[in-house]
Order: sequence, then structure tokens, then C-alpha cells
Amino acid sequence: MKIIEVRELSIRMSGNISNAVVDFSRHDVSLVALVSDIIRNGRPVTGIAFNSIGRFAQSGIIRDRLIPRVLNAPSESYTDMDGDLSPAALRQVMMRDEKPGGHGDRASAIAAIELAAWDLRAKISDEPAASVIARNFARVPSDKVSVYAAGGYYYPNEGANRLRDELKSYQDLGFDKFKIKVGGVSIQEDIARLETALKQAGSGRNISVDANGRFDLDGALSLGEILKPYDLRWYEEAGDPLDYDLNRQVIDAYERPVATGENLFSVPDVRNLLRHGGMRPGIDIFQMDAGLSYGLTEYAEMIALMEASGFDRNLAYPHGGHLLNLHIVAGLNLGGCEAYPAVFQPFGGYLPGLAIEQGMIRLPDTPGFGLEAKPELRPHIEKLMS
Amino acid sequence: MKIIEVRELSIRMSGNISNAVVDFSRHDVSLVALVSDIIRNGRPVTGIAFNSIGRFAQSGIIRDRLIPRVLNAPSESYTDMDGDLSPAALRQVMMRDEKPGGHGDRASAIAAIELAAWDLRAKISDEPAASVIARNFARVPSDKVSVYAAGGYYYPNEGANRLRDELKSYQDLGFDKFKIKVGGVSIQEDIARLETALKQAGSGRNISVDANGRFDLDGALSLGEILKPYDLRWYEEAGDPLDYDLNRQVIDAYERPVATGENLFSVPDVRNLLRHGGMRPGIDIFQMDAGLSYGLTEYAEMIALMEASGFDRNLAYPHGGHLLNLHIVAGLNLGGCEAYPAVFQPFGGYLPGLAIEQGMIRLPDTPGFGLEAKPELRPHIEKLMS
Repeated sequence: MKIIEVRELSIRMSGNISNAVVDFSRHDVSLVALVSDIIRNGRPVTGIAFNSIGRFAQSGIIRDRLIPRVLNAPSESYTDMDGDLSPAALRQVMMRDEKPGGHGDRASAIAAIELAAWDLRAKISDEPAASVIARNFARVPSDKVSVYAAGGYYYPNEGANRLRDELKSYQDLGFDKFKIKVGGVSIQEDIARLETALKQAGSGRNISVDANGRFDLDGALSLGEILKPYDLRWYEEAGDPLDYDLNRQVIDAYERPVATGENLFSVPDVRNLLRHGGMRPGIDIFQMDAGLSYGLTEYAEMIALMEASGFDRNLAYPHGGHLLNLHIVAGLNLGGCEAYPAVFQPFGGYLPGLAIEQGMIRLPDTPGFGLEAKPELRPHIEKLMS
Repeated sequence: MKIIEVRELSIRMSGNISNAVVDFSRHDVSLVALVSDIIRNGRPVTGIAFNSIGRFAQSGIIRDRLIPRVLNAPSESYTDMDGDLSPAALRQVMMRDEKPGGHGDRASAIAAIELAAWDLRAKISDEPAASVIARNFARVPSDKVSVYAAGGYYYPNEGANRLRDELKSYQDLGFDKFKIKVGGVSIQEDIARLETALKQAGSGRNISVDANGRFDLDGALSLGEILKPYDLRWYEEAGDPLDYDLNRQVIDAYERPVATGENLFSVPDVRNLLRHGGMRPGIDIFQMDAGLSYGLTEYAEMIALMEASGFDRNLAYPHGGHLLNLHIVAGLNLGGCEAYPAVFQPFGGYLPGLAIEQGMIRLPDTPGFGLEAKPELRPHIEKLMS
């Protein structure tokens, strides 16, 4: 098995939404193709993936550093003893001459290609990515995954009923748990939004709030004090994602579940969260995202480290509500996954016809991650391959 | 003052050297130009800088994210109340829509342009960068800087006398302190190299060793035990740069000075080192590098945080032996700076005619960082501007 070509296309995200710190209408994502020398139906079998959502396309790193390393490497350096593509070995090839530390853009550039390798493996054996992932890590894939609707972003000139109508539309789709943003407007407005959401969702246990790392310690503690009586599902990323001690102090004061990790892109960073962040087994949520973190190989090492530290994998809920993470959650038997039913197109959300029932979604049986079956993505994949 | 153009050129480093983890012959660096609308002698005054050494050129991030943000921003967003260019404000412009965390390639991409802003400011006021930097931070620039020769890399087919001859050549240039690599070959070979270096340098206090993050805890402790009797100047980056607890344990066991920080690229990362790394005021060395860390604005915040935590700035010795850091060390009155007299061309080293006497180098009086006066860099700057 040889990789004969790697392609990349930067795709701008649609929509006009923002969280407490960024405006997503200026964000883009790298869609990549890993073209093999295996021919089926007259065409090379090709892995397709992207670098999740939120940290920009990585066209430069992919073209300048990663593609030359992959194409210059002998195929034995990225295949296993059976001659099959090894995503773990491919990651090593891509990390050649990279220094330790500095896990940022590079991590998502490598992730896009590493995940395309999983898609390629699954297509070669003609099965869903979740099956290949589960087999690789000696697990049995879940046939259903718990999903929650991540929305409640800030919209320009947002009316009073917009958020209520948004949650109602998610309920109509079959969702029963929701996440909304906090920290982007005044505390008063955020509380009014939360009250609206609670009314629609029925209970605080169905609502999480996400501050996207917006607050300093005082701000994080103040908001925590206000949130505490609502008994929410979780309070997410109160402060800077690398401020482990802030996380620990928020946990001490807030007591109810917190969630963090979507901006930790390596095993060493997650190790620091486990050592210094005060996270509690059985209570707090880990949201690392393979698509931002060197891919599934590194992500699975993070989960193994969590377990070695006494945490259960059912508290892992990856950031990034898309098909890649749906398969990863099912393949690794994680707690669940976010979904963006209305935002982050063409990448967010799942497949048409994949019904959500009481917050659970059944795994699709398309080979690989099934990105070609997503109507919003299909024209982009066609452009990538043309 | 308006920025009318930003240019970037990726430049491959010459040489054929490696440390314990990377081969530098495949590394490149982004040389950037920040072109202002101020005309002198018929030409626009232009700031020139680069993103230090060791984390690759950042052509993609600079072109795709940073240049559009800078050129689309109104000039009031990056100038101060007097209408002068503000590197701190320019950094904010470049960070627009960037999420927290993930301080890697982005940090060095932004640094190149932020440092070019300091060069531009200094050229506008026709003075060395060190003077502008010192004035900005309410200090008096040092007229001399302590430098040590960083070398002792691994060369292919290295003979027994190569390292001795290398250190001898540094002594002939006026250096009296040296750094060599460890961890890239067997412990036995590393110790033989260290003995060679000690013999040439006269004392362990003149030699530091650098493992470039190579070791796990056991390896780092074992090497520390072997190194301890040599009473070295410092033992650098024994383990993963983000493994603060490893650093703390190495310090506890090794007792003598350690150095780290060159792979920490943000204030939150440095805060974690200060909180969890066991670093001791008056003993251990901090090596963060503005050129890899969003530029001088963020770097000065790191130094302020060190001081607020009880550490003296004379224990800051930035990674990266080049003119940018020479001016930064003088302008901020730091402890000293590494120098690469023989490696990392065209970026490493200082200016011809800048004599080193007993390990001290006098600041040049060329305006800005003076990169145009460095013969190895001049043709690249001409190409960048052509």
C-alpha cells in the first residue's frame, strides 16, 4: 500500500455566528484527500477527512511540511507488518524533524491527514470507520451514540425568541440536551438567555453552558456562583484552557460538573490537566478532539491516560459535532458527542435520514467516515478531487 | 502611520547538524518585511525580522490569516495615541478570531511580524532596536551582553577531535562559555564528548548541556545523576517541555541549575512552569524566545510574570542566538543570550566586527535590529524586497 498523492483544500465556513471570543464567519477548515495506489472500480481508493472545526485551515503546514514528508517516505515507514496503512506510523512520518512542545496549528494539520488514513483503511476493508477504529483498539463499536445539540451562539441583532425557536427546532429533530454560549454579552443577558433555554429544555440537567475560555479567575468564579443553583449538565471552559489551576479553583467553588479540554491538543497538555486541573472521576467532562490533536492515534493515547488516571472513557465528549467524531465516539465507546444541527456547514452535523431519537443517533453504515454521503460536503469533495 | 504591505519569504537553513530529536538541514525560517507609508530617501521605511530558529517558516499562516488581518485593519487599530506604530496593538489585530490555547506555529508566525514592527519603530526613530525596547519598558539598555557559544551539535561521521576544535574556534572568537548537546547518542559517547568539552573549557561552570526534551523521567534522572559531579553551568530541557512535574522532579534530584522554556510560547504556558515546574529563584534559567512566542509584547509579559513570581530577569537567557535576541536582551536587561557562531546561517550569529571579549559583546549601533548589516542575510533581504 502506497500513498501516491495528498490533496488539500481550504473551505470557508458558512454562517454568521460568534462565541465569547471569535467570529466564525472568518474561519475555514482543511479538507484533505489521501490517495492510495489501490484501485477499485477503476479509481484509486482515497481517504477523506478534515481538521475538525475552530482552528482554521492548515494549507501552509500541510503543503510545506507534511505532504513532502509523506510522499518522500518509503511506504514501509507508514505500513504495518501486513503491509496495511498504519495511521500511527504515518503520524510519526509527519512528525519528522518537529520539536517537542508547541501543540497548535501543527496538531490540526497532522490530524486531517491522520484521520484521512483511518477513512482510507475503512474504505479498503469496506466498513464504517467506527468498526475499524474499534477493532484497532480491541473494542466493540457502539451502535448508537448519545448526542446533544450545541448551539445558542450569539447572532447579530438577535431577537428575544430566536434562542427559544432554535432549541425548539432541535427538539423537533429529536434532541433532548443542548449547549448554549455564555460570556459574550452581559451577565444579565446571559442569564436571560439561560432562563429561556431552561424553560424550553425543561431542566438544568439538559443544558450546558460554554464560556469558551473567556473569563479570568474572578469572572469564572462569579459566573459559577450564579450558575450553581441551576444545576446544569456542565459549565464549560470558564477560563483560559491552559490555566489548570483556575480550573481546579472553579471546581472547588462551583462543585457541580465542569467540562474542558477542547483546546488541549496533545498528551502532555492533557497530562497537565489531569495532574493540576482538579478534574474529578465520575463528574467532570473531557472534550479533546482528535481532529485538532494529531488525529486518532494521539487522541486514543489521551483516553488511555485518562483511564490510567482513574477516569472513565464515558466522560469523554469530544468537541466538534461531525461525522469524524461520531465514528470515533462509537469506535472507542465514549460518552457522547456534540452535534451542530444548524451551524458550521458544510462540516457540522451528520447525514440526512440519520434519525435522532431521545438524543441518541444510530451509526451510519456507509464505508469510512461517510463524508461523501453528506450533501453539504459532496461538492467540496468533488472539487478537491477534480 | 500605515502599513501598506507585508512580505514573507521562507528561507532554508544551511548546515547539516542535528540535536537529540531533529535534523536542522530540513528547517526553514520566515523572513518578513513590514512596509510603512513613511518615505525616507525615496523609499518606504520597512521593518525586517524573522521567527527565530527551530519551528519552521510560517508562510501559510502569515499569508492566509495574518496579512489579510493587518492590511484590512484601520491604521488606528495598530497605532498609539501619538499615531506611532504599536507592536502590542498590532499583535491584537493579528489575534483577531483566534481561539485561546494552541500556542504553536501561530505564535512564531505572529512573532515574525510583531518583531518587524519593533524594527520599523526603531528605524523610524533612527536608533538601535535595544534603545526603543528599553524606552518602551522604562529601562536603560545594556551596552554589553553576556553571550555563550551554543554548538556541540551532532555531525554525521563526526571525528574525535571535531568537538575540541569547535570549542577552540569559539575561544579564538572571544567566547569563554559553551553549550553542547546530549541525548542524541549513547550515554557513553555523550560523556566522552562532555569530557572533551570540559578539558577545553577548563571548568564545568563554563559548560551547559542540552537534551532538547529527549528523555522520560527515568532517563532525565539517570543522566542528571551522571552529570551532577561535573558541576555544570546548567542542564537544559531534560524532558518534554510541557512536563512540568518532570522538571520539578529533576530539580529535586539533580539540585544544580537547570534551564528550560524555549518550547513554551505563551504567558499561560510560562505561568504553568512557574506554578508546577519547581523552578528556583536565583538558580534556574528561563529560555523563552520572543521570536517563537508572539513577539516581544508577549515575551515582556513573561518576564513581568517571572518577576511577579519572585524570579530575577537576569536568569532569562533567550533561546536563539541572533541579532533579534541580542537587542531584546540588552533592551530588557536580561541575563544573556546564546550565540551560534558557526551554525544556523544565515540567521545565527551577530555582525562582522562585533568583537566578543571574555564572553561579552557590545551592542551594534545600526538602526533597528540591523539585519541588513549581516552579510549572510543581506541577499535574502534583497530578494524579499525585490
